[in-house]
Amino acid sequence: MGELGENINNLTIANKSEDIVNPWHVSSASDKGVDYDKLIQRFGCSKIDSKLIDRFESLTGKRIHHLLRRGIFYSHRDLHNILNLYEQEKPFYLYTGRGPSSQSLHLGHLIPFIFTKWLQDTFDVPLVIQLTDDEKFLWKDIKIEEANKLAFENAKDIIACGFKEDKTFIFSDLDFIRLCPEFYRNIVKIQKCVTYNQVKGIFGFTESDVIGKISFPAVQAAPALSSSFPFIFSNLKSCNKVPCLIPCAIDQDPYFRMTRDVAPKLNCCKPSLIHATFFPALQGAGSKMSASEVNSAIFLTDTPKQIKNKINKYAFSGGQTTVEEHRAKGGDCTVDVAYQYLTFFLEDDEKLETIRKAYSSGEMLTGELKKILFETLQPLILEHQERRSKITDEEVKLFMTPRLLNFKFG
Amino acid sequence: MGELGENINNLTIANKSEDIVNPWHVSSASDKGVDYDKLIQRFGCSKIDSKLIDRFESLTGKRIHHLLRRGIFYSHRDLHNILNLYEQEKPFYLYTGRGPSSQSLHLGHLIPFIFTKWLQDTFDVPLVIQLTDDEKFLWKDIKIEEANKLAFENAKDIIACGFKEDKTFIFSDLDFIRLCPEFYRNIVKIQKCVTYNQVKGIFGFTESDVIGKISFPAVQAAPALSSSFPFIFSNLKSCNKVPCLIPCAIDQDPYFRMTRDVAPKLNCCKPSLIHATFFPALQGAGSKMSASEVNSAIFLTDTPKQIKNKINKYAFSGGQTTVEEHRAKGGDCTVDVAYQYLTFFLEDDEKLETIRKAYSSGEMLTGELKKILFETLQPLILEHQERRSKITDEEVKLFMTPRLLNFKFG
Repeated sequence: MGELGENINNLTIANKSEDIVNPWHVSSASDKGVDYDKLIQRFGCSKIDSKLIDRFESLTGKRIHHLLRRGIFYSHRDLHNILNLYEQEKPFYLYTGRGPSSQSLHLGHLIPFIFTKWLQDTFDVPLVIQLTDDEKFLWKDIKIEEANKLAFENAKDIIACGFKEDKTFIFSDLDFIRLCPEFYRNIVKIQKCVTYNQVKGIFGFTESDVIGKISFPAVQAAPALSSSFPFIFSNLKSCNKVPCLIPCAIDQDPYFRMTRDVAPKLNCCKPSLIHATFFPALQGAGSKMSASEVNSAIFLTDTPKQIKNKINKYAFSGGQTTVEEHRAKGGDCTVDVAYQYLTFFLEDDEKLETIRKAYSSGEMLTGELKKILFETLQPLILEHQERRSKITDEEVKLFMTPRLLNFKFG
Repeated sequence: MGELGENINNLTIANKSEDIVNPWHVSSASDKGVDYDKLIQRFGCSKIDSKLIDRFESLTGKRIHHLLRRGIFYSHRDLHNILNLYEQEKPFYLYTGRGPSSQSLHLGHLIPFIFTKWLQDTFDVPLVIQLTDDEKFLWKDIKIEEANKLAFENAKDIIACGFKEDKTFIFSDLDFIRLCPEFYRNIVKIQKCVTYNQVKGIFGFTESDVIGKISFPAVQAAPALSSSFPFIFSNLKSCNKVPCLIPCAIDQDPYFRMTRDVAPKLNCCKPSLIHATFFPALQGAGSKMSASEVNSAIFLTDTPKQIKNKINKYAFSGGQTTVEEHRAKGGDCTVDVAYQYLTFFLEDDEKLETIRKAYSSGEMLTGELKKILFETLQPLILEHQERRSKITDEEVKLFMTPRLLNFKFG
């Protein structure tokens, strides 16, 4: 039985005591958030272990990214394949994306892009970024033109992450359909290989779902086939069979389980994946961060004052109720949101460990921990805003123009 | 309850004693072929009566086409709306299409095009013709490039029917997606309005069907929205709300029942329809004409000799088993395929009536009737072949280029 078969069963038998994780819904059975180890078992992917990390470091000759060494990117599918290609100096590419939401992204949205930029810098390979404006339109009460516009605005925030112009192609589905005949043809080819029964099993669709949702997974699958981008790979001999690595949050895995099942049928390579855990809401891992709930997240448009206030007021604390009790018992870093956020954004391991010890022992108070966090985030977001403000519409159009990308191996 | 709701029930309760009629399967419960009156009731459309025909004739000042006066185009939806627009000199357009099949079309494929050409000549309005190469790929064991090529070849046969170049736009789905962003956006908009439950009820899809099939009906619905063709209607004030009339065989009605349900939700006009009965196979109304069964149909590539032989050898006869019996009892025109074919292709009413009387009374023998048929079809098909042979690839490309069409009313 293929991957698809296994996962249909795995998801169908999910019961009340299990977390629900799919691209549109994440809810955990416990207050502590999603059980990521159980998720690996259910999805049938592999944990990233120290051996894999060692290989990564020795091959690239570079210290591994903190999001990887801290277990935030924690799971994978066939990552060894990509490392083999890198070792053999054979071509591959990176593929990530986002569903354009509100005009402003929040901190959590940055995580896959920060990590993808590091992968691009490390591997020196092309990257394609899909903006699913069609998905946004299908799932939300929004006009199609508005969804398309959001994609363009979101592209500015993505570009501000520092991607290399000569190695990065950004596209909105609604526009790309028109720009590249191969993209739509791959979508239809994928739609010919997947039944309603299969998407029902993988994504939990019901008979009341609209046919646009039911057929959408093929749109997110198509960029994992290099033949969707003939202009990028036209310099290569076997441009239809360039493998890709997809960095994404683990809730996107269902799309690519499906893709991995379909790819060999279309004589294409199975994509490899590297999965991240979720970025917690200010209110804690058990609650949901939402673009429509301004106080659940720190946005990339927030002012230094807003950042400070949100963290002080809303960040769930793992500290004790009184100073005396805190000094005696210490804080709980495993649930403290300020500490969690630092694991994502404070690169210095030594400093993070010092903070962890001080907070756990009660030496450091919640207010002090929160201060470290907002002083870390304020400059980071200010710099992002500065970079973003300098990005012109012309620059966005350049990133979104189908063109030959710079390729190291071939 | 809307049209869609009613029809879901109508189709779901179809039982063994009822004909099955949908875009991919036509089979009748009786040997005499489909019961067209029952079909009208089940589908909820209206019979074309003498009053409607009279109005048609008096408005256009033209004798009605023989396919209409002989009840071959026999049913409609909101045809009065179109006649009202014509009367008020307000704009509308025609929309028809075909699923590109084998390289050669057969006689039955010509019927909607012959009638559509007459409608175009009579009303002097633009016409769009959809070639569903994507559907062909999804339903058949064929490569996507091959389906796209067939569409181009089929376009030559369609153009050979005599459509006016300045009023006709022909497109293949796979190409048009790329040529016109509005087309794909309309597809996605329609896909947002229709649930799996609805297409299951209308088309009989099951959970084992691939998601490409399940979402396809939106592709055939989209050309019924004038906003899919901004380049045709850009001269008009309300170019997004130009109504259309769809001439088609009755098995295509399910697509447009769905379209009529969706259109108002997208602030578009419900399309009007005019339905034809089916063109019978040589073996009779109870059997199926198939492009893959060479002896079931007369193809537009057949030689005069092949036409003669096929008719003499395969055309189901309503005559008696011996000459003596035939002279005594006469032939049965209601089942005789040669006579049926003449009702489609012999324009002269008087001559047809003379033949009917002579054959029914036994005065005319089957061989004589068949001779009249092949002598009618041979020049018709030869002329088609001559016209087709003169159509260049450049001419096809011109018909398939999005452009402003010539419009009488505006």
